[in-house]
Amino acid sequence: MVIKVHGSPISTATFRVVAAVHEKELEYEFVPVDMKSGAHKHPDFLALNPFGQVPALEDGDIKLFESRAITKYLAYTYENKGTPLIYKEGKQMAELAVWMEVEAHQFDPVASKLAWELVYKKMFGMEADAAAVQEHETKLAKVLDVYEAQLSKCKYLAGDSFTLADLHHLPVMHYLMGTQAKKLFDERPHVSAWSKDILARPAWEKSIALQKQA
Amino acid sequence: MVIKVHGSPISTATFRVVAAVHEKELEYEFVPVDMKSGAHKHPDFLALNPFGQVPALEDGDIKLFESRAITKYLAYTYENKGTPLIYKEGKQMAELAVWMEVEAHQFDPVASKLAWELVYKKMFGMEADAAAVQEHETKLAKVLDVYEAQLSKCKYLAGDSFTLADLHHLPVMHYLMGTQAKKLFDERPHVSAWSKDILARPAWEKSIALQKQA
Repeated sequence: MVIKVHGSPISTATFRVVAAVHEKELEYEFVPVDMKSGAHKHPDFLALNPFGQVPALEDGDIKLFESRAITKYLAYTYENKGTPLIYKEGKQMAELAVWMEVEAHQFDPVASKLAWELVYKKMFGMEADAAAVQEHETKLAKVLDVYEAQLSKCKYLAGDSFTLADLHHLPVMHYLMGTQAKKLFDERPHVSAWSKDILARPAWEKSIALQKQA
Repeated sequence: MVIKVHGSPISTATFRVVAAVHEKELEYEFVPVDMKSGAHKHPDFLALNPFGQVPALEDGDIKLFESRAITKYLAYTYENKGTPLIYKEGKQMAELAVWMEVEAHQFDPVASKLAWELVYKKMFGMEADAAAVQEHETKLAKVLDVYEAQLSKCKYLAGDSFTLADLHHLPVMHYLMGTQAKKLFDERPHVSAWSKDILARPAWEKSIALQKQA
């Protein structure tokens, strides 16, 4: 039974899962959820995610939602396939937990609001709000200052291996790299090297190919 | 060496960690961070958490921040003490990951905004914004409808044992129970039984005692 990833090609949460599936070298089927027609609020989809949000995963009789729970499930379940993506012991595991929370609670809320202003509004024919852009660029700069210090100590956020703590940044970072916010990454040498490194991973390039094709 | 929990008695994130320490029956020292005087932005504290937010944990040479990373660290590291708080295998572990994400991304953003309006503003001598209260009560009701369905299938959110997925709700829920938002929990029979059950846990009562004393 092939894994099914239900999601939308423009959803950053969906692409966290797609990136993880590619890193784990798993066969999967991408099932597009037509959000324009409200398919994510249809009972069939609510049976997969009662909150009516993409993505959702089916793996045999296991049905999961919340992108960061799905990537963790894939990393633990398919431990011996593809990239490890996690640390399972002691201090390294604790560091990984910290930096996964940092992505979710420090980086993503700010970066997603910037992506909304600079990417999605354009996609939907709306104007960016200059004050909101300014506010969130200032906040993102502060977050990336902390990242710069951390990445001067180790190659990736949670240590010397690429993990879910890095991977979870990819979809929003990929969008921001096509905007004026790119400078916030480029100005910081360690952040710049890290972002270039993780965006160039073959598994991410394969994920992006799916996005373009959809 | 005794565990040190650095935090504030009015911080819900701090009390996620305090609750976990009590569930694991660990000896610890509570180190108050005087946020009024800006102690959380002092270099000494920034060495514990570069984002300058409470809580932070010291356990020997391990220094961690982000409340939900700390509780996970405690649950894994002190596996054989106190309440287990986690599932470490297969489908149960995946369900736990999902419901931990649900707390962080569905419940907490809405419940914390309500607590800001109904609890903290009063604490700081400010007026609640009636429109914001209404908006977040409506949103919280929708989240709790999903909880009601889940808790009709199992006693706790991630299965039949009390886990971090439940524990992480305690501090904000405790505050909301002293406000008009209590009705949102009481109106839903399974949510009501669950909230009463977890708020009455001896480890939580010990945590609250610390809050009152501080």
